[in-house]
Amino acid sequence: MTQINENYLKLKAGYLFPEIGRRVKAYSEANPNQRIIRLGIGDVTLPLAPTIVNAMVDAAKEMGTSSGFHGYGPEQGYSSLLQKIIEHDYTKRGVTLSEDEVFVSDGSKCDCGNIQEIFSLDSKIAVVDPVYPVYVDTNVMAGRTGEVKESGHYANIVYMPATEANSFEPDFPKEKADIIYLCYPNNPTGMVASKARLTEWVNFAKKTGSIILYDSAYEAFIQDPAIPKSIYEIPGAKEVAMEFRSFSKTAGFTGTRCAYLVIPKELKGKTSKGEEVSFNSLWSRRHTTKFNGVSYITQKGAEAVFSPQGQIEIKEQIAYYMENARLIREGLSASGYSVFGGQNAPYIWLKTPRNLKSWEFFDELLNKAQIVGTPGSGFGPAGEGYFRLSAFGKREDVISAIERIQKM
Amino acid sequence: MTQINENYLKLKAGYLFPEIGRRVKAYSEANPNQRIIRLGIGDVTLPLAPTIVNAMVDAAKEMGTSSGFHGYGPEQGYSSLLQKIIEHDYTKRGVTLSEDEVFVSDGSKCDCGNIQEIFSLDSKIAVVDPVYPVYVDTNVMAGRTGEVKESGHYANIVYMPATEANSFEPDFPKEKADIIYLCYPNNPTGMVASKARLTEWVNFAKKTGSIILYDSAYEAFIQDPAIPKSIYEIPGAKEVAMEFRSFSKTAGFTGTRCAYLVIPKELKGKTSKGEEVSFNSLWSRRHTTKFNGVSYITQKGAEAVFSPQGQIEIKEQIAYYMENARLIREGLSASGYSVFGGQNAPYIWLKTPRNLKSWEFFDELLNKAQIVGTPGSGFGPAGEGYFRLSAFGKREDVISAIERIQKM
Repeated sequence: MTQINENYLKLKAGYLFPEIGRRVKAYSEANPNQRIIRLGIGDVTLPLAPTIVNAMVDAAKEMGTSSGFHGYGPEQGYSSLLQKIIEHDYTKRGVTLSEDEVFVSDGSKCDCGNIQEIFSLDSKIAVVDPVYPVYVDTNVMAGRTGEVKESGHYANIVYMPATEANSFEPDFPKEKADIIYLCYPNNPTGMVASKARLTEWVNFAKKTGSIILYDSAYEAFIQDPAIPKSIYEIPGAKEVAMEFRSFSKTAGFTGTRCAYLVIPKELKGKTSKGEEVSFNSLWSRRHTTKFNGVSYITQKGAEAVFSPQGQIEIKEQIAYYMENARLIREGLSASGYSVFGGQNAPYIWLKTPRNLKSWEFFDELLNKAQIVGTPGSGFGPAGEGYFRLSAFGKREDVISAIERIQKM
Repeated sequence: MTQINENYLKLKAGYLFPEIGRRVKAYSEANPNQRIIRLGIGDVTLPLAPTIVNAMVDAAKEMGTSSGFHGYGPEQGYSSLLQKIIEHDYTKRGVTLSEDEVFVSDGSKCDCGNIQEIFSLDSKIAVVDPVYPVYVDTNVMAGRTGEVKESGHYANIVYMPATEANSFEPDFPKEKADIIYLCYPNNPTGMVASKARLTEWVNFAKKTGSIILYDSAYEAFIQDPAIPKSIYEIPGAKEVAMEFRSFSKTAGFTGTRCAYLVIPKELKGKTSKGEEVSFNSLWSRRHTTKFNGVSYITQKGAEAVFSPQGQIEIKEQIAYYMENARLIREGLSASGYSVFGGQNAPYIWLKTPRNLKSWEFFDELLNKAQIVGTPGSGFGPAGEGYFRLSAFGKREDVISAIERIQKM
């Protein structure tokens, strides 16, 4: 019998979202007349913007014609999309990139999960706690960690706690870490990194020889013009960081699937003998060997995001979600909750009342107000006692949810 | 500086298709007035069938409405698509599968490349030589092989040569192999496996405790009703085999991206302590952690493939390509070439004339007839002296190509 990858057995059972689903299902079955409001999982609810839909309808029709059919495209993405990404998301912010430094993919979850393959199995990772679970789980699967400890932490991962005590701004890793995962605006805490703090991170990575994997999937929600949207706005960042971006939350592509990963050519790793190797060329080899490009129709939809009308439409959607965030934030504050995030991010992070455990508050909210949120402890031990609400719901649901919470 | 995955440095430089591109570009630049006919890479050329286009147009429009918008879908695929896959591709052929045994993905290249992650790094793979390079390269990257040898083979891979001497029907691996990659109809040789031979493979895997990764991406091209389309038509195969399927060649989805992987629950691996673990549950964990489902629009297109009208339309396309295959096969035979495959597969495998090396024949064909094919040696050392032509071209190109070859 063939032997399995035993690292999978180290993974904690009971992944967050299936457990939420189980509890919600049990409650619904016991209380079939109660209307449940879901502010848990970070999925968008507004339909795709008209300009994007039209572009995809046209692309689908084009695929049905001899002259307009597209078979295998370039694995890295069509040049027309790459150019728009660079021009809109980077050139306008003073960052120079060439087309072969951007890799279009079918999702940031995939990119964040796959990127670890090009690093040595001996490299040590550092993550913020609480954290988006994919960073951790994919390294557990690859074998870069030990077993899970009683604390809920895995052995051989450097955790950087982000709690109220440090204003959710994690300190630099105390031990040497080769790969540092950062996510700003943050999932789950909704915090952002100032230009000064990001500069410190870049300098820290330079000094320690670490690489930063910078997940900025939520950059579109930044309202404060002083906050960097890209880590490359910091001088020298190209030598220490990759950047992950997505159309999922920016343009409602969670069910349409398009993202991209930036790997500047300046970003180098080394062999065990000390020879320098470009991460761009390693990822290019990975991307062309294990991936076959994003659907042509999807790429045309993504291109439409950058058209003048597309920009107007997606900015309206983001404004809608940020108004939800404001309502949740202010509604909860008025009810006496300690609330964080939600100002430059679509997530609101709150302290549970009466020192309830995250899952206790989950149950209370579900039973008393029929609201589904996400227990902070699901994102890591330092998330215990916190709770995440998402601003991606429908307005009427957000308003009802706040009313219900205020009555609790 | 962060250390890289040094296994990538073992990969042979000069991947096949970029090298073809380089030589074709050089020729075109030197001979700008010559019209080049491409029968090399296995990409389809007919536009998407009308029923598929209509379904995707409708799905794109639906995504623009509040009631029809789809965000994150189930990672494994929508139930409506899973049901159609099972009913059409399996139930009708006497194979019983449940929905959670089928995983919809964005491509067989991805699935074939990613699947190795759930096996132990110590497991040994066996591949046919010549072979689809993705099977080998992804295992090199993961570290399951040694360096490449002078023969062109990697150390620690078991190669099973398929040449004219054994009628392109490889013998069982001589050494113990944990994971056996089989592809029928075969890329690149165009050969198929009879029911009797496939039964021998299943029995062999049972006896040796190996697992078979069965790539049947080209099953739609099988014309002979006696040839199995699925390995699960062989009794007991569920205990030893996974099966890879794709819409790429079946329905022209190379630029639309949809495939699926079947992992029956009976298929078990073991831990180092000998405990049994279901590969289905391991892959489910991998698929949900590193992948976020296929575009809703694409899945609706894939569903339309199984409609009665969709079936009529894609069968016409396959008939068109198989008529191309017949023309190539018979045209080459009439010109004195030894030709294989092309009867139940879209690939024609030919012996180079005058014992030319594969790349010598490539250059000759390009220079004398302006035809681009694929050198057999690009698929492995046993492909040396052979050459692959694909039946996916346009009819007029196929006819011109045959005329040019006959004049050579």
